[in-house]
Amino acid sequence: MSVSTAALDPSVCAPLPVLGQDVTVPLVTGGEVTYAALDYAASAPALQRVWDDVAAYAPYYGSVHRGAGYLSQLSTDLFENSRRTVAEFLGCRPEDQVVFTRSTTDSLNLLAAAIPANCQVFVYETEHHASLLPWRDAEVTYLNAPRTPGQAVETLERALADRDPYGPALVCVTGASNVTGELWPVRELAAAAHAHGARIVLDAAQLAPHHPVDIAELDVDWVAFSGHKLYAPFGSGVLVGRADWLQAAEPYLAGGGASRKVARRADGGVDVDWHTTAARHEAGSPNVIGVYSIASACKALTEAGFDNLVAREQELVSRVREGLAEVPEVQVLSLFGDDAPRVGVISFVVRGWNSSHFAAALSAEYGIGVRDGLFCAHPLVRTLLGSDPQDPGECGAPEAEPGERSLNAIRVSFGAGTPDEHIDRFLRAVTELVREGAQWKYRTEDGRCVPDRGEAPQV
Amino acid sequence: MSVSTAALDPSVCAPLPVLGQDVTVPLVTGGEVTYAALDYAASAPALQRVWDDVAAYAPYYGSVHRGAGYLSQLSTDLFENSRRTVAEFLGCRPEDQVVFTRSTTDSLNLLAAAIPANCQVFVYETEHHASLLPWRDAEVTYLNAPRTPGQAVETLERALADRDPYGPALVCVTGASNVTGELWPVRELAAAAHAHGARIVLDAAQLAPHHPVDIAELDVDWVAFSGHKLYAPFGSGVLVGRADWLQAAEPYLAGGGASRKVARRADGGVDVDWHTTAARHEAGSPNVIGVYSIASACKALTEAGFDNLVAREQELVSRVREGLAEVPEVQVLSLFGDDAPRVGVISFVVRGWNSSHFAAALSAEYGIGVRDGLFCAHPLVRTLLGSDPQDPGECGAPEAEPGERSLNAIRVSFGAGTPDEHIDRFLRAVTELVREGAQWKYRTEDGRCVPDRGEAPQV
Repeated sequence: MSVSTAALDPSVCAPLPVLGQDVTVPLVTGGEVTYAALDYAASAPALQRVWDDVAAYAPYYGSVHRGAGYLSQLSTDLFENSRRTVAEFLGCRPEDQVVFTRSTTDSLNLLAAAIPANCQVFVYETEHHASLLPWRDAEVTYLNAPRTPGQAVETLERALADRDPYGPALVCVTGASNVTGELWPVRELAAAAHAHGARIVLDAAQLAPHHPVDIAELDVDWVAFSGHKLYAPFGSGVLVGRADWLQAAEPYLAGGGASRKVARRADGGVDVDWHTTAARHEAGSPNVIGVYSIASACKALTEAGFDNLVAREQELVSRVREGLAEVPEVQVLSLFGDDAPRVGVISFVVRGWNSSHFAAALSAEYGIGVRDGLFCAHPLVRTLLGSDPQDPGECGAPEAEPGERSLNAIRVSFGAGTPDEHIDRFLRAVTELVREGAQWKYRTEDGRCVPDRGEAPQV
Repeated sequence: MSVSTAALDPSVCAPLPVLGQDVTVPLVTGGEVTYAALDYAASAPALQRVWDDVAAYAPYYGSVHRGAGYLSQLSTDLFENSRRTVAEFLGCRPEDQVVFTRSTTDSLNLLAAAIPANCQVFVYETEHHASLLPWRDAEVTYLNAPRTPGQAVETLERALADRDPYGPALVCVTGASNVTGELWPVRELAAAAHAHGARIVLDAAQLAPHHPVDIAELDVDWVAFSGHKLYAPFGSGVLVGRADWLQAAEPYLAGGGASRKVARRADGGVDVDWHTTAARHEAGSPNVIGVYSIASACKALTEAGFDNLVAREQELVSRVREGLAEVPEVQVLSLFGDDAPRVGVISFVVRGWNSSHFAAALSAEYGIGVRDGLFCAHPLVRTLLGSDPQDPGECGAPEAEPGERSLNAIRVSFGAGTPDEHIDRFLRAVTELVREGAQWKYRTEDGRCVPDRGEAPQV
């Protein structure tokens, strides 16, 4: 996969309107400033369009499926039409199923529960925990961190060549790293998987908000993503793809909606006839608003011209990388090197700085929201920081003192709603903090890094 | 448990404002009418207060937990404070854990995944599928339908007396039936369970929206309910109660948020250190808006004076039951008889009518939304209809022709947002339909019962 560098249409270079763009936050140095949300990789603000759609629908909310009332039927149609919208957004094949879940984590846990009993799973150690950990009942082969996309393909091919070629196998790979933003060679990995009789699931949590995903073109078997990273933070996610393993598996949740018929048996037990459609894995009343919000976001990105959004985001990526490169104390984390295509997710450390204190100063002194830590991808971040990947560092553990090797990193991430000013402010803040130091001291209290109000400001 | 009959404060007898109360829907007979949402037992409209709280928060939405920005910290506080609000709403004991899920179905599946390996489960055949079906890995004893609350206790005591007294056991019971609205003797069942060394989980999906639930007073071990039935339809639910089994169990979902430390092992595998707090079972980015909406609903019900809401709903229950009793063709379904305390959930059949056609006529000719079917409680509805509880009738199957014994039922349900006019209209509609017949014919098309526009109206 490559990032489009199609000519940018200057008429659509404005960011998409999102909620919260006028919210102001207090600064420890006095006064207020509009909040710069630069933690899109964790969760993105809702598109204004998504919010407007949800607000317009909310009075029409009704119970779905078996409700006989007008709003129940309207809500059922909205719910099922949302399935079609997501299928179109992902370029689904006719036989693909769209299952609504609560998040990418939930989607991958669902797939993990649906794989055949003797399925071998192949996953890179560089995955975030949502992709790394769900395969609890399978025989898992953890692949070592590759240092180029080509090495990623070679590593997979070698591992697959060694496997029992007659049993089922699944490869799980992230489309864009939640730490480095780097794109993985999904199409090539899919080809390698299929050449060895394995299937592949694409974790598109970080890819789908930043880049069109075409399931047929990539030739992957499943795609998972979350609404809340796709500008639709209303508690829904998706697992989309081949129906056969899903239909053959036990229902993910047991309950109403997944069951077609339930009856006592003569021996006192209970017989259940489960649905074989997507409903099989969607027991319980569906999150209609969450599902509709995802469909709304898919439409908004498509109608805005996703290629234009990609082109604009790439300009922001270049500016951030070039700006950080001018600060010698900053080390940007990268697995695949400077030339790797990437989305708007960039992690770094600052020599001489505790990452948590740096992130806290960005917030308290500049109103910028980033993230510090290990980003739920512990082995990857440890590898990138040059620490021992076997060192079980804790997300949220006390940080190294200034001057020591950083145990955590700082991540800045952005997307379709990010105005230029947020990027400008971020680069100015990094430069000022590194050159002039923070105006306050920071300390960790109840796991949160806060200005140390017990001391006079440093300035 | 008994329904409060405390003196009604006339000043608070108005329904709570809900979304959609001004929505109009078209009638097949011409014109429009405001929609009467009488399917609360499936899903209730959002309280206006809940919507206002969500709308006020939405611009401040931010990634929770490890985000360093101001809105991330605000959102984290909102999320964790919501946990405390829910704990207060349910009268939790200090050691109880509040785990956020997506629904009651999800909560009970989580508990089913957390029970000890050799746990015996006791569940009445009268439960809805969310309580009946999740216990897939356990040895389940299905208890026959009792015909009085006292019989329910006796049935449980007999079953528990027969069990191996040294192994773990769990009783699962619904607080209020989603079919009959009848209350189950939860406190007595909890006492019986504990007397025999068993634990008990209360499915409060239908109870919590209609009646205060006090986990300590009822002395149950866990409570589960859904936001969307509690006037907060934003995709979240809760499982609340004892922490020990939850802490000892494998995480419900594997992924970030549930994992505290992850590291490669020297042998190539991966070691995970899981959280032992509620986070253990909440992997993935939490549904902050869904969780906050539940907390908002809990506050709204408490501040409105839940006892007053109960008293008003009981008046509506009496009016519906008395109104239906005046129509000899109507048979109200009941397990425990006329004197049983109940909430605003009433199911019935109409002699000579196909239930689906009746529900469709209520919608198309009166703008009233009810539900027809087996209400995801197949064995119970079959028992109440006098059909064979072993007959695997299908929810949504073609209905009996008029004149045949009904295979489905009609359910009317209401709550804190229901105005008197909806109840008036419903009773008038039932009376008119039974006495004068429907104005249109109805037929089933794509699983939905619709006016047969191919035929001239019957009037």
